[in-house]
Amino acid sequence: MNENGFEKGFDENFDKANKHISVLVDRVLQNLLALPEGPESRVFEAARYMMLGGGGKRFRAFLCCETAALFGVKPQNAARTAAAIECVHTYSLIHDDLPCMDDDDMRRGRPSLHKAFDEATAILAGDSLLSLAFEILADEKTHPRKAVRLDLIAGLAKASGGQGMVGGQMFDLLSADMASNAGNLTRLQKMKTGALISFAVDAGALLGMADSAARNSLAAYAHDAGLAFQIADDLLDMQEDANIRKDTGITDKTDKGADEDEVQRVTFVSLLGEARARAQAHILAEQAAGYLAPFGSAATHLRQAVAFAVNRDY
Amino acid sequence: MNENGFEKGFDENFDKANKHISVLVDRVLQNLLALPEGPESRVFEAARYMMLGGGGKRFRAFLCCETAALFGVKPQNAARTAAAIECVHTYSLIHDDLPCMDDDDMRRGRPSLHKAFDEATAILAGDSLLSLAFEILADEKTHPRKAVRLDLIAGLAKASGGQGMVGGQMFDLLSADMASNAGNLTRLQKMKTGALISFAVDAGALLGMADSAARNSLAAYAHDAGLAFQIADDLLDMQEDANIRKDTGITDKTDKGADEDEVQRVTFVSLLGEARARAQAHILAEQAAGYLAPFGSAATHLRQAVAFAVNRDY
Repeated sequence: MNENGFEKGFDENFDKANKHISVLVDRVLQNLLALPEGPESRVFEAARYMMLGGGGKRFRAFLCCETAALFGVKPQNAARTAAAIECVHTYSLIHDDLPCMDDDDMRRGRPSLHKAFDEATAILAGDSLLSLAFEILADEKTHPRKAVRLDLIAGLAKASGGQGMVGGQMFDLLSADMASNAGNLTRLQKMKTGALISFAVDAGALLGMADSAARNSLAAYAHDAGLAFQIADDLLDMQEDANIRKDTGITDKTDKGADEDEVQRVTFVSLLGEARARAQAHILAEQAAGYLAPFGSAATHLRQAVAFAVNRDY
Repeated sequence: MNENGFEKGFDENFDKANKHISVLVDRVLQNLLALPEGPESRVFEAARYMMLGGGGKRFRAFLCCETAALFGVKPQNAARTAAAIECVHTYSLIHDDLPCMDDDDMRRGRPSLHKAFDEATAILAGDSLLSLAFEILADEKTHPRKAVRLDLIAGLAKASGGQGMVGGQMFDLLSADMASNAGNLTRLQKMKTGALISFAVDAGALLGMADSAARNSLAAYAHDAGLAFQIADDLLDMQEDANIRKDTGITDKTDKGADEDEVQRVTFVSLLGEARARAQAHILAEQAAGYLAPFGSAATHLRQAVAFAVNRDY
């Protein structure tokens, strides 16, 4: 246990569950992204580079499958829905990395998609992954009940659209002025990253046909967990920047690409300072875990997930 | 009647039906694209600029609503589905116009979206319209039957994805070498524009819960009509280029933006020559109309639509 009451090591089962879910999701995606014969196969190659190239934490897939498991749905029966959510997450990374957006040359330790292929292919690969997500969810293999599939589709469409993830990215691009207080920044992050994280949890509840009391508890968990993850990400970015400066001796932030985010954007760390941001992440993580009380030990992995997120150092 | 047996003027009812459908679709979109309060409203403003800025023919909406009408579905009950299809069509235009794709500065007589706003906003507005399309279709207001809504979603996802419209755009970007014969070019166009046109017709049949014989006839109609439309478009592009050259005295094609497509790309006109392309469009249009025989006079507007497309001079 560390000073915040979370285990640092996590148990073997947590790691095993995480890997098992990744394997199941990859299997779904391997089939769906099989290369067609024509020249359009380039879009699929590009999508595979990002979806199956390794390095993805499959964190949203894990949330979906572990939430579904609370209601007796096996990971293999939640894996298609989890794969659809990962498609949307990956499409957003591809588009956000573009030169006219965040202009990131690297992603998960490799060239970002528009660098490895080209901008047009990157835009189209992202587009194709968004359509694919809905194609996956509409299929009866995803869940036997039509009403469940429709709820999944409506939920994913809202979470990913102009009032969710895409709206959050727009907000972020305009944010230098607008996210200048914690309230605005919280709203921004709830849209940009929180909406899809919340949907990943709700999708698990939908697959398990959870009652509304359970869905509400899980929504509260997802809300606080999502913000905790984001603050943890901001802290990691800051740490990485500090390490790079130490390694390279570069002190002028504008000299290196990895710092662009911090220069241009307000983050929880720049707004609250490191110590308060870290404390806030831990408070949110504990609150999030608290909402899982009704599920008892069945929710151990979901509790560990949020602890993992705020304690990870990579 | 002109030399091809098609009426040039079309009847008043055709025009009235077309306008009526446009009004219904616009009403749906006005509501769905209402501006939210936060800074993410910029995405909605951009989407409205393209969706509601005028100039769109609402051709796919017309095909959907008129096909639905064959089975007794009123236009107002098909308008949400038609609006979803127009969202996907417009998103594809927005992304195709981007500098890294077709690099078109103008669209429908106005600056294209990335010129009127900026590239990042254009990409995000396109993304949001794709999500919105699925949000529309998942809603019970679109059709009372869940199975119908799921079929619509699955169909739109396939038509718009990597094996449909997006794959066709990828094909097109690589096409200088690859579409060098009529077979390849036909395959390209079936994906790039044909898939969504075919879906618009099939969506009408799905809304009307048509039997498989009717769906097959309509699929054959849509296939030939889609290719006829594309050839007609290529002929119009050629005509416009000739007019611009006459008006401006510019003869070097590379001097003006509007010609870029023709310089870079193989079209039915460049491949077959003007006379053969024109003849081919009329053959396809007549074939398409022939597939509507089982529907008698109820299909008058669908017959006129394809005649209109191959005879229009704008």
